[in-house]
Amino acid sequence: MFEAAELGRKIPKSQYKKLAPVLRAELLEVQQRLRDAPFPVIVVFAGVDGAGKGETVNLLNAWMDPRWIVTRAFGPSSDEEQERPEYWRFWRELPARGRIGLFLSSWYSEPVLDRVHRRVKAARFEERLNRMVDFEQTLADDGALILKFWMHLGRQAQRKRLKALEKDPLTRWRVTKREWKHWRLYDRFVAAAEQTIRHTSRGNAPWTIVEGGDPDYRELQVGTVLRDAIRQRLDERGVPVGATNPAASAKGAGRRQPIAAALAATPSILSSLDMSPQVPKKKAGRLIEMQQGRLNGLQRKAGPRGISTILLFEGWDAAGKGGAIRRVTAALDARSCQVIPIAAPTDEERSHHYLWRFWRHLPRAGRLTIFDRSWYGRVLVERVEGLASEAEWRRAYAEINQFEDQLVEHGIVLAKYWLHITSDEQLRRFKAREQTPHKRWKLTDEDWRNREKWPLYERAVNEMVERTSTRTAPWTLVEGNDKSYARIKVLETVCDRLEAALDE
Amino acid sequence: MFEAAELGRKIPKSQYKKLAPVLRAELLEVQQRLRDAPFPVIVVFAGVDGAGKGETVNLLNAWMDPRWIVTRAFGPSSDEEQERPEYWRFWRELPARGRIGLFLSSWYSEPVLDRVHRRVKAARFEERLNRMVDFEQTLADDGALILKFWMHLGRQAQRKRLKALEKDPLTRWRVTKREWKHWRLYDRFVAAAEQTIRHTSRGNAPWTIVEGGDPDYRELQVGTVLRDAIRQRLDERGVPVGATNPAASAKGAGRRQPIAAALAATPSILSSLDMSPQVPKKKAGRLIEMQQGRLNGLQRKAGPRGISTILLFEGWDAAGKGGAIRRVTAALDARSCQVIPIAAPTDEERSHHYLWRFWRHLPRAGRLTIFDRSWYGRVLVERVEGLASEAEWRRAYAEINQFEDQLVEHGIVLAKYWLHITSDEQLRRFKAREQTPHKRWKLTDEDWRNREKWPLYERAVNEMVERTSTRTAPWTLVEGNDKSYARIKVLETVCDRLEAALDE
Repeated sequence: MFEAAELGRKIPKSQYKKLAPVLRAELLEVQQRLRDAPFPVIVVFAGVDGAGKGETVNLLNAWMDPRWIVTRAFGPSSDEEQERPEYWRFWRELPARGRIGLFLSSWYSEPVLDRVHRRVKAARFEERLNRMVDFEQTLADDGALILKFWMHLGRQAQRKRLKALEKDPLTRWRVTKREWKHWRLYDRFVAAAEQTIRHTSRGNAPWTIVEGGDPDYRELQVGTVLRDAIRQRLDERGVPVGATNPAASAKGAGRRQPIAAALAATPSILSSLDMSPQVPKKKAGRLIEMQQGRLNGLQRKAGPRGISTILLFEGWDAAGKGGAIRRVTAALDARSCQVIPIAAPTDEERSHHYLWRFWRHLPRAGRLTIFDRSWYGRVLVERVEGLASEAEWRRAYAEINQFEDQLVEHGIVLAKYWLHITSDEQLRRFKAREQTPHKRWKLTDEDWRNREKWPLYERAVNEMVERTSTRTAPWTLVEGNDKSYARIKVLETVCDRLEAALDE
Repeated sequence: MFEAAELGRKIPKSQYKKLAPVLRAELLEVQQRLRDAPFPVIVVFAGVDGAGKGETVNLLNAWMDPRWIVTRAFGPSSDEEQERPEYWRFWRELPARGRIGLFLSSWYSEPVLDRVHRRVKAARFEERLNRMVDFEQTLADDGALILKFWMHLGRQAQRKRLKALEKDPLTRWRVTKREWKHWRLYDRFVAAAEQTIRHTSRGNAPWTIVEGGDPDYRELQVGTVLRDAIRQRLDERGVPVGATNPAASAKGAGRRQPIAAALAATPSILSSLDMSPQVPKKKAGRLIEMQQGRLNGLQRKAGPRGISTILLFEGWDAAGKGGAIRRVTAALDARSCQVIPIAAPTDEERSHHYLWRFWRHLPRAGRLTIFDRSWYGRVLVERVEGLASEAEWRRAYAEINQFEDQLVEHGIVLAKYWLHITSDEQLRRFKAREQTPHKRWKLTDEDWRNREKWPLYERAVNEMVERTSTRTAPWTLVEGNDKSYARIKVLETVCDRLEAALDE
């Protein structure tokens, strides 16, 4: 889930200096409009210490008109507060309609830390997450616009950041024993964070995960999300564009594009993959056979123990899904293994919920099922081709997470593969197919059409991994420019997952 | 919550014979239309054994065209089913678009029984309830119309019904040891049921509680809810009215009113109150003083122990709220007690969520706060006067339940009073006020206007009690035609609640 927030995204200083004043003017403009609006804006900040929560809130106060902003942070409960139900203090501090409330700590802080420090059990933590969802639902139903930012830093990045703060006499006070104690609990913290975000990211109160390493990047990121969300809601509600700041507005309209472009130019999950690894042709066959033997042995143990496995493959056209799948099935007894190719749905399937056909094909205990393309079509091809509406594919992330939760909870080993190749490599393979008579049938006009939409698919894949790669059901990204390397990586990771399940 | 389903509602046989054929024709008509619709209808039946779940499903199959109905019941899981996640069998059996699925048992059955038999802990039960909500949300988001009927019988009514079934040689087979075992667990069952209904009754998948004692009543009740919900959804989706059954349609339109009238003529929670109890004038003063002394003593213990109390009063105009409240405050030290009169909201209050102003007034530990009118205004005056939209007051039941949960969970003693008088008694009091100079100010034009809306308010009160009277926060209905009786009942129940809290 946090892969996309550990890529070292940065905005060049010179660019930031040009873009920040534009964003600032636009934020002021939407804030002015908001004053007449019939709804409040509630902005929650949470995340890793040192990822810039406080700085961001300070900056927003500096950029916007602080008279219409309420900034709140909550420490340990006072006597007054302890004598009332937990949410009393949050209710008191909610912004009125037309105002923005920035919550530097919130209803998330205590429950997450209580969980990290194991002061509450998993079940009680779930209950508290439910209460958060109910609270936000109540406010959103009443019209509140709720935005939540999870500021993230990788484990090492956080360490570096704390060290840097400690070194500077001016910021040393900000790093106490408490911060280092948290850092040592980093893994637990991230696990609790993942559970929290998955459980509480709803259509009416979504989380945005922000990489917190570079101040300029995170400020532009938070600022644009805030600007766009408020502006969209104002437009939906028909709040007129005020004449308060026409200059900024006009300037803004012309310059909006550059900020989006600058953010898009930062690394993504896919663009950060190292595509160079290769396996020498000579060694490849032997290595594949080794892993196949291992897989065969593992599956012969898993079958009688009733451990089912589901592998699913997504990837670019010509990325080598078929070849990788054949290397897996070749290692297995055909009776214990099934490949489900997913094409356009049948009439019967179309007359049900899109997940229905995947539920149908769940394997019996002890079997291995391979989905050649999968339920992720909803957020890939259906999204890009407009076969699903934005509302449909957006809510699919939660639906898919819930579906996979049920698989994993039932004890099924679930491994998800994205076979990745570069655009150049795809072109090379397409051309090779054209020239090889017995492969020509594999290449269709549709493949060429899909290729033109590469950037759209790339965005969809990045978001898919960000939203659905979880501790219980992680994505494995397979660097596929070298086919042998890809096949070995697939076989090896399937074996590792199965082995881990057998060891449990 | 089940008060309204233990009133002995009945439809006279002669009336039923006239109305049933009309309803049947109308159900057939909506079913015909539904066949072209882009959504399925999912109907869940649950409830007390013997309350007519099976009979109702059989009847619907007989009344409608069974080719387009899927009826399903689920027993203990088969081998096949146990080898897949729990919801696999439910997904498999979902109706296709245009069809109706009747689920005689469902995803509710096993979790509720597991809880009743204490095979799962409270926390695990909550998790399973969440899964139900997510499942139904997923289906509803995809367009499914979901209706859920909870068929209810009071404890004694269930016993009678089981005895009757046992006596008849033709139905004896239906009552096994299992049914009697369930009956002995009745209280636990009802507690689990209440939790289930509160947690899973959502806007897109609401529960309807049906009194199951009289077959004719329950059939008309289920049939009309089904008919109206499908018809409304068809109209919303623009599915044309078919020419398949114009006769039934025309006949239906003319006769719809009588069925609604017959159902409305059955007893309600308010109409079932025995309004005759009186306390002789002579004894009243002494009895009130006794309870006041008791209350004073209890509050002097509750204060130092930090136990807070909230009393809220709702009731008809001139029902005696003020008098009852004064009898409570007279018993208490003014420093430990506060009355919050709720009138139209201030500007500041209006610029927040409607619950905000009630959160503000929550008492500190050890105090007693009286709300003279309350958050229930949302589902009473705001509903009846159109100050809240239907969507707003409908979702308020859940919001209020969640709010009160937080109060009770925090240890606050919450007592809710509806002061009830008959319409005749109100008229008598209004007239008396008109004629008493020092009371004339109390009577306004608004009181007369409200009086004209008596039936609308009555419906709102009945629904309020049905939806928000829970084990943790029950309503106390106070028979108020005799003022002394009412005051004593209020004082006595406050004392009982406080005493119970002190004993914990």
